[in-house]
Amino acid sequence: MDKILRVHMGPEQEPYCTTEPVGEYAGLGGRGMTSAIIAREVPPLCHPLSADNRLVLAPGLLSGSAAAMSGRLSVGCKSPLTGGIKEANSGGQPAQVIARLGYAAIVLEGQPADDKLYKLVIDRHGAQILPADDLRMLGNYDTVAKLTSAFGEKSCCLSIGPAGEMKLGAATIACTDMEQRPTRHAGRGGVGAVMGSKGIKAIVLDDTGMSRREPKDPDRFREANKTFVAGLKRHPVTGQGLPAYGTNVLTNVVNEAGAYPTRNFQTGRFDQAASISGETQAETIKARGGQVTHGCHRGCVIQCSGTYLDEKGNYVTKQPEYETVWSHGGNCGIDDMDAIARLDRLDDDLGLDTIEMGATIGVAMEAGLAEFGDAERAIELVQEVGKGTPLGRVLGSGAGVTGKVFGMERVPVVKNQAMPAYDPRGIQGMGVTYATSTMGADHTAGYAVTANILGVGGTVDALKPEGQIELSRNLQIATAAVDATGMCLFTAFAILDQPETFQALIDMINAFYGLELTADGVTELGKKILKFERDFNERAGFTARDDRLPEYFRTEALPPHKITFQVSDAELDTVFNF
Amino acid sequence: MDKILRVHMGPEQEPYCTTEPVGEYAGLGGRGMTSAIIAREVPPLCHPLSADNRLVLAPGLLSGSAAAMSGRLSVGCKSPLTGGIKEANSGGQPAQVIARLGYAAIVLEGQPADDKLYKLVIDRHGAQILPADDLRMLGNYDTVAKLTSAFGEKSCCLSIGPAGEMKLGAATIACTDMEQRPTRHAGRGGVGAVMGSKGIKAIVLDDTGMSRREPKDPDRFREANKTFVAGLKRHPVTGQGLPAYGTNVLTNVVNEAGAYPTRNFQTGRFDQAASISGETQAETIKARGGQVTHGCHRGCVIQCSGTYLDEKGNYVTKQPEYETVWSHGGNCGIDDMDAIARLDRLDDDLGLDTIEMGATIGVAMEAGLAEFGDAERAIELVQEVGKGTPLGRVLGSGAGVTGKVFGMERVPVVKNQAMPAYDPRGIQGMGVTYATSTMGADHTAGYAVTANILGVGGTVDALKPEGQIELSRNLQIATAAVDATGMCLFTAFAILDQPETFQALIDMINAFYGLELTADGVTELGKKILKFERDFNERAGFTARDDRLPEYFRTEALPPHKITFQVSDAELDTVFNF
Repeated sequence: MDKILRVHMGPEQEPYCTTEPVGEYAGLGGRGMTSAIIAREVPPLCHPLSADNRLVLAPGLLSGSAAAMSGRLSVGCKSPLTGGIKEANSGGQPAQVIARLGYAAIVLEGQPADDKLYKLVIDRHGAQILPADDLRMLGNYDTVAKLTSAFGEKSCCLSIGPAGEMKLGAATIACTDMEQRPTRHAGRGGVGAVMGSKGIKAIVLDDTGMSRREPKDPDRFREANKTFVAGLKRHPVTGQGLPAYGTNVLTNVVNEAGAYPTRNFQTGRFDQAASISGETQAETIKARGGQVTHGCHRGCVIQCSGTYLDEKGNYVTKQPEYETVWSHGGNCGIDDMDAIARLDRLDDDLGLDTIEMGATIGVAMEAGLAEFGDAERAIELVQEVGKGTPLGRVLGSGAGVTGKVFGMERVPVVKNQAMPAYDPRGIQGMGVTYATSTMGADHTAGYAVTANILGVGGTVDALKPEGQIELSRNLQIATAAVDATGMCLFTAFAILDQPETFQALIDMINAFYGLELTADGVTELGKKILKFERDFNERAGFTARDDRLPEYFRTEALPPHKITFQVSDAELDTVFNF
Repeated sequence: MDKILRVHMGPEQEPYCTTEPVGEYAGLGGRGMTSAIIAREVPPLCHPLSADNRLVLAPGLLSGSAAAMSGRLSVGCKSPLTGGIKEANSGGQPAQVIARLGYAAIVLEGQPADDKLYKLVIDRHGAQILPADDLRMLGNYDTVAKLTSAFGEKSCCLSIGPAGEMKLGAATIACTDMEQRPTRHAGRGGVGAVMGSKGIKAIVLDDTGMSRREPKDPDRFREANKTFVAGLKRHPVTGQGLPAYGTNVLTNVVNEAGAYPTRNFQTGRFDQAASISGETQAETIKARGGQVTHGCHRGCVIQCSGTYLDEKGNYVTKQPEYETVWSHGGNCGIDDMDAIARLDRLDDDLGLDTIEMGATIGVAMEAGLAEFGDAERAIELVQEVGKGTPLGRVLGSGAGVTGKVFGMERVPVVKNQAMPAYDPRGIQGMGVTYATSTMGADHTAGYAVTANILGVGGTVDALKPEGQIELSRNLQIATAAVDATGMCLFTAFAILDQPETFQALIDMINAFYGLELTADGVTELGKKILKFERDFNERAGFTARDDRLPEYFRTEALPPHKITFQVSDAELDTVFNF
């Protein structure tokens, strides 16, 4: 991981690749790398679909090593959805493979002069740019099938679906999992549209012949990794809840807390939540012979994933995540798990962010395009995106654009990115994260559900403003650091509760790189990344006024707690006081 | 004009009206009034379609008096298109009538609890809110016909078409002219969507029984008015060009200058410009028996308007304005004057801003929805808006949204409002105004075409950056002041060139109000208004980063001069240094 691959797409010249030493970006990984490159190299006022934007793929500091859970990929750019900096984070195979191929980052630059499509093929011999017009407007499943048949079962892929080719605001970049299925997505902020604007349909990676990245101090590393894994196994969330039920274990929890955004954030409790809970989902999957415990990348020990089969036992999609089950489920008044799984598959295939799409359909339903609860119509609406109809393009542009086009006031977005599965009135700490994150409304940016609901990392009353700023600030800093390591964010549950597991992570980094990083050093890393991002956003025109929830979260009281968002603007403006 | 009418639309109560003394807003008129009320009363971060936004209608300081040219109406709100403050300015009858009825402002507040439609009826007895569900989704022509038949030939109307009811970003408020045709529009920034969000389909005004507003010093006033009119008659633009050919006299001038944005701002010269020039238009109109010289409101002495008839001599629309002929013409590669007139009529009837719509169709053509030059398809696209199809709603949301939905980079907007008929590369002073105006891209905000092209008010080389900042700054200040008087902006041609005509305008205000305003006082008024507006925009989240043209105006050289926009960002940031 000592080099950067730059892919020059034009328009002055035919596309070509160059490789350079990691240079000034040495020592950065994951989100640290993507945000540094974007903040330094992208003109903050450029059009996100222009040649001036860059798309950066960066494995984490520990990706490609034997470290458990180290397979997360950071994807950075100026976001077509938010207009600010973006890091979208994905599981799947690519991070480990890119790291083993020795690349600290792959940077897509420029734009082809024509509208041809290309694929980028990278193996131990180097990188090639090849035509890919035969893949035009194929879904991710067909795209990956074709590429796998051409490049072999040992390859893995990043690809965009029709949504990315159409350059839509909700377009993702799909990453294949260990079974070469495009089920893992760099989902948020329209990163797929930027890949589409670069004319790259897919990136095929093959690390055959490359070996695992080796630590400087193998013994210390092995020991730390063992302690780290033991901590994950011991924690009730990472050791029991997630493996047994997947992320969807949260449906009952958040619904019970009265913070489950239902029917476009009209209420905080969904009467039919039990039908789509993780517990029900796991039973259904088991009864049909699917997997309920499964990892998305080599080295995963939490195994929160699974496979969802239809009634006849045929594969439909991976086990839908909590956020997806919520967005296409409760948020649209839909309680049909099979329909939700079909929507998840559709999103994955078209290359659409499930959170943005579910939130968008919720807005569309309130606008009268469908009845809340009408699953078949919801499926038709997502299918419209694939057809590229005007309606489909509107929906694929996300909740903000859909709200504008249909003249809606109640549109749950911050910085034009849709809110995920936690109502900011029912979990006020999440409201702080949504409002202030450099990413737009993003639960992963500072997951206050921990202390607000789960009692992880302490306890802060979810319904009161007190303590939420500090909670969100600390989580945002910690998350930025974790996102730099390549570690799955779910390790944070154990890290927050178990000092020895946190220390083990630091020990792994130190043993790998021959460093003497401390906990304070990790905090400093997180702060540094956030400052890069915040600075970019300021230069792109963001102010404190963008760090706000839509007005109606302050005026509409959310049932059942009948509560509005209570954290003051003045307090929100202190989140980045560090 | 010593009272304010407030129209409370709910949602807590049934709609009702109150009247109050003008109070703290005393002495303000037109844009001075609308911007003061919006800046003071509207939460800058509210959703523009929410109950918290207000729609303010304000006649100018001299409206309703015998002053020539004093019939302009200011319409203010937080704009659904730009997200900033908005003053849209319209001719037609309403300003004179509202002023004679004694209202310094009409303020629509709140929002109905249901989605019923209402009309507001105002005469010398007061104001009434009546049901208007029978007018739902009627075009402005049918709406006005129904209202005129109900309220008599002496009434005049403000109304919204289907676009306003659908709350689209390009929706206007139509004002009837002297023949009770809805041909004059408060066009820009989606003011019609705000009226729609208030549930008001139309406002019917009747000043029967009210008398003209009388000046404090009638003799001095009469004398000043006489001097003022003489100045207008004497100036070649206001005395000859505009009456003979209307605003479309500019087509040949701007095209010749190489600053005529053609085919979505791809080039600065349109080969078929002669077919749609003011000269050709006037000949056609005369040959068919239409009027080429006509005023839009009582008291107009410039008479830049007219009526456009079809080949059989039937009325189609008012004589299309230069901006409309450009937007639906050269900007879309269309050289068919009859088609352009039909588009103008369609826009007026649906209640759409002709500038925004033509710019939007230009973007749509570049996106492949139609060929440049295909007039029939352009008409179909505008008709889509009236049908309320998803495509229609996208287009009716303006160029910015259309660009997003179709993944386009080349979208000529500033603050999400489409640029008018002057390429900022070919007329660099207009570029400064587009970039920095509080209104978004708006030619009327600081019409640098004067010194850049017409040699009015001095001469500044259109193709060089030197002198453009000062020119645009001074024009923006002067315009804000003129917009407060109720005077038609075209009086500025004479005012800029003839000190005695400028003095006559000041004398009229002084004689009317018993003041001793000086030229410096007028400048101060303009500055004060701009500061109100700028302050609102800052509180709404705008920064210097919003005072920029899209990137491609700096990178794509415009033929035939092969020039990019040359004024630096640092210089742009000095426009409001006063």
